[in-house]
Amino acid sequence: MKIGFIGVGNMGLPMAKNLIKAGHSLTVYNRTRGRAEQLEPLGARIAATAGEAASGVEALVTMLADDNAVEEIIFAPGSGAIHSLPAGAGHISMGTIGVQMSCRLTEAHHEKNQHYISAPVLGRPDMAAAGKLFIIAAGPGSQVERFRPLFDVMGQKTFFAAEDAPSANTIKLAANFLFTCVIESLAESFSFVQKSGIEASTFLDILTHSFFTAPAYKNYGDLVAGGIFEPAGFRLSLGFKDNRLLIDAAEEARVPMPIAGVIHDRFLAALAQGMADLDWAAISRISYQEAGLVEAAR
Amino acid sequence: MKIGFIGVGNMGLPMAKNLIKAGHSLTVYNRTRGRAEQLEPLGARIAATAGEAASGVEALVTMLADDNAVEEIIFAPGSGAIHSLPAGAGHISMGTIGVQMSCRLTEAHHEKNQHYISAPVLGRPDMAAAGKLFIIAAGPGSQVERFRPLFDVMGQKTFFAAEDAPSANTIKLAANFLFTCVIESLAESFSFVQKSGIEASTFLDILTHSFFTAPAYKNYGDLVAGGIFEPAGFRLSLGFKDNRLLIDAAEEARVPMPIAGVIHDRFLAALAQGMADLDWAAISRISYQEAGLVEAAR
Repeated sequence: MKIGFIGVGNMGLPMAKNLIKAGHSLTVYNRTRGRAEQLEPLGARIAATAGEAASGVEALVTMLADDNAVEEIIFAPGSGAIHSLPAGAGHISMGTIGVQMSCRLTEAHHEKNQHYISAPVLGRPDMAAAGKLFIIAAGPGSQVERFRPLFDVMGQKTFFAAEDAPSANTIKLAANFLFTCVIESLAESFSFVQKSGIEASTFLDILTHSFFTAPAYKNYGDLVAGGIFEPAGFRLSLGFKDNRLLIDAAEEARVPMPIAGVIHDRFLAALAQGMADLDWAAISRISYQEAGLVEAAR
Repeated sequence: MKIGFIGVGNMGLPMAKNLIKAGHSLTVYNRTRGRAEQLEPLGARIAATAGEAASGVEALVTMLADDNAVEEIIFAPGSGAIHSLPAGAGHISMGTIGVQMSCRLTEAHHEKNQHYISAPVLGRPDMAAAGKLFIIAAGPGSQVERFRPLFDVMGQKTFFAAEDAPSANTIKLAANFLFTCVIESLAESFSFVQKSGIEASTFLDILTHSFFTAPAYKNYGDLVAGGIFEPAGFRLSLGFKDNRLLIDAAEEARVPMPIAGVIHDRFLAALAQGMADLDWAAISRISYQEAGLVEAAR
């Protein structure tokens, strides 16, 4: 399939590689051109603008970090991808963007007789490299089916969430919220058991061999207990952005989420102490600081 | 083994049954005598007082609801079990009690040359009936080994947590905290997705087939999404007691736990609305109420 691919960061790069390896023809655009050029030896064509990447393709895949990037890449007057994407083609947005932005994309693509599918992913860079992401796809069912071969290359499982694309973004934000709840609840309970004279690893071992066997507890339990926040699988600054998007959407839907509020302030404290580029599991450090187990950064 | 068993509520009754079926000789005491008498046809002897149940046994197993019950059953002047438990025998306390109470029991039994093991359990009545509990045992290693045959009858897995008995209570309170975090985080996120037009079951299906595969999410996800709070697997009033014990212990250890505070207020709101005898998953109802999805009780 002829594919435009925009955004080859930590996640996008391995996803694009997998599409190329599966035999698809990719035109790649990235704001930092050097990253896109890593794909040239594999056979990708490098586009000079977002509009060029979208031109003449059947599918445009975007893996962008936030709504500002979508604004610039898709909607920029003249050079934005939406202006050159052919009618009948599909835009598959796989980054974690806001629900409102997803609504706007749905409408804008519809007006141009293009298709829009939201397909945010669950998983970290190693899973992206292995083609083992979980993909939450929403949009017209026929379009999700049309692009399923692409999803099957990038993910181990694709969930069809709903016919309206923004639902996938709602679900993705709620899922990321649950990850932050795991991190924060582990941080608070590890601080508690450690100050009571018990190793966090003893407690974690009991959890992950009884009722908390899920990967979320194993993965983040090891990071939080070990204080392992580099390299960042998912940057804390992006985690904060997703918490902010969740709270925006929850305000819009009129749903109080008190735990999301607690976690919002954990992110703020971590950012205040210069942790933006650490893994988002580093919000756990605030609990440890408050309990007097580690020193705060100055 | 000659065993005294005190406290045959929802959990204790099936645990005692399994011990009898495995061939152990039980003398049973329960404050509401009628419940203990259910075990008579199986061959249990019924004691008139706690002291009588502890008399002449090798092991005294208690499955008591709270610290007040322990105070009355173990320490009551004259009739309390500690006064008749033989030297060299072991008291295995399997209910969820406070860390301070566990410290007191450790010292009191030590003074009388009795052994004390804390062995609180993870699991609900159906798992107790199936002998599939998870048991968190702490106390002198040789004593935990001595009574392992009893644990193997009641549980699918026994974790040896530490040589000091109160550690098991600390761990159990922290584990129960994590269950409440799962319930509350599901409640907030289900409210959010539902008000955004997505079925909670669609969201839950994605969670439990990706990173949140643990039994904690499957079990409580179904209860919260379905609003199924009767019959109570674990009564909300007991869940509140455990949250209170956690906060007490965290205060003692000087560990701020902001999410535990949010959950404390969920319990209070649920109790205020007469939900004491529902399953503790009913704290989720407060999120639904706040989001305008269900009416508050008056």
